Amino acid sequence: MEKNTLIVLSGGMDSTTMLYEYQQQIALAVSFHYGSNHNDKELHFAQLHCQRLGIKHIVLPLPFIKDYFRSSLLAGADAIPSDEYNEQNMHSTVVPFRNGIMLAIAAGIAENEQLQYIMLANHAGDHTIYPDCRPEFVNAMNEAVQAGTWNNVQLLTPYTNISKTEIARRGLTLGINYDETWSCYRGGEQQCGTCATCREREQALMEAKQLMDKE
Amino acid sequence: MEKNTLIVLSGGMDSTTMLYEYQQQIALAVSFHYGSNHNDKELHFAQLHCQRLGIKHIVLPLPFIKDYFRSSLLAGADAIPSDEYNEQNMHSTVVPFRNGIMLAIAAGIAENEQLQYIMLANHAGDHTIYPDCRPEFVNAMNEAVQAGTWNNVQLLTPYTNISKTEIARRGLTLGINYDETWSCYRGGEQQCGTCATCREREQALMEAKQLMDKE
Repeated sequence: MEKNTLIVLSGGMDSTTMLYEYQQQIALAVSFHYGSNHNDKELHFAQLHCQRLGIKHIVLPLPFIKDYFRSSLLAGADAIPSDEYNEQNMHSTVVPFRNGIMLAIAAGIAENEQLQYIMLANHAGDHTIYPDCRPEFVNAMNEAVQAGTWNNVQLLTPYTNISKTEIARRGLTLGINYDETWSCYRGGEQQCGTCATCREREQALMEAKQLMDKE
Repeated sequence: MEKNTLIVLSGGMDSTTMLYEYQQQIALAVSFHYGSNHNDKELHFAQLHCQRLGIKHIVLPLPFIKDYFRSSLLAGADAIPSDEYNEQNMHSTVVPFRNGIMLAIAAGIAENEQLQYIMLANHAGDHTIYPDCRPEFVNAMNEAVQAGTWNNVQLLTPYTNISKTEIARRGLTLGINYDETWSCYRGGEQQCGTCATCREREQALMEAKQLMDKE
């Protein structure tokens, strides 16, 4: 398979699973250092998996996000909500248009490197919380990226309409050790287990294992 | 008029004209330091006009562009073409998806600041050279920005289908002194007068003055 794809890689469960599932076509992984509470923890695992798979990995600094954007995700561990992963609870964690910014930069890099595709691991569970994870956004951004590049770079978002549980099921089937990914929005020494993102992670892993036990 | 608009401001002729023409609705001007040959020269004038008009101005660094993108616009004065401003000649000056990147970041800032509109001064003369100046790109990016923000931020690009000559005519009518803008892609002490961008500038100003003499 041709290596013609750039992946936006955080080091969390979703994009790490996508990295392994589509490794045959991925030429370059791009991560962003934007000053979130858990950024260093995520990037450690992003780098680890790229090294293991022999995929080139670059980390781009976006210092303006921490300087100019307000979000609990940028405001320290204590600002992160502790309850269930849902729209109301997670609204404070939105970093405005984060996926739009990451995809636009990825499009420039892809055009520059003559890569035809960009992969993003947005999934169905995030649609109600993050507007820049929804199909309407992804479809329009795909049009914009194609129209705005000479090589007509395209977006691929194969997880847009699947759940995090299904992502976890795929990853476990591929043999991914999810202890080598980071979800916790608090970004402490260990994943806290109580913030909404930790809860979402644990639930997806539990449900995925239940599904696999039935298979 | 409500101050509900962010403008992407370079300090060149087009965006400076837009700043003056739409000053009543502009709450914030955003410039980018991305390492182009002429960046410091442009930003000097961007700042000057914002101070004069009492418009808040911020400059965001994008260090990854110089580090990872190839373009004659990033490669020093000698790399800039000297002949006519046309597609073939100017192709090397393309910074991949630059407008997409700037608009995506502007969308995040606008969402954060609760501003409803983003203005970009792309114009008809750039359509054949820069794919991210064309109506197809602008329309799709507008959809993406609306879909990807809670406040449904929108793009305004009133110069998309007018010429640089018409922009210059409007600016001269508004009393803009274009000596206080920067076009030259070489970025030396003075504008060189021989690079394609200087030629395009001089032609637009000459034609605009001719039009105004006939009025």
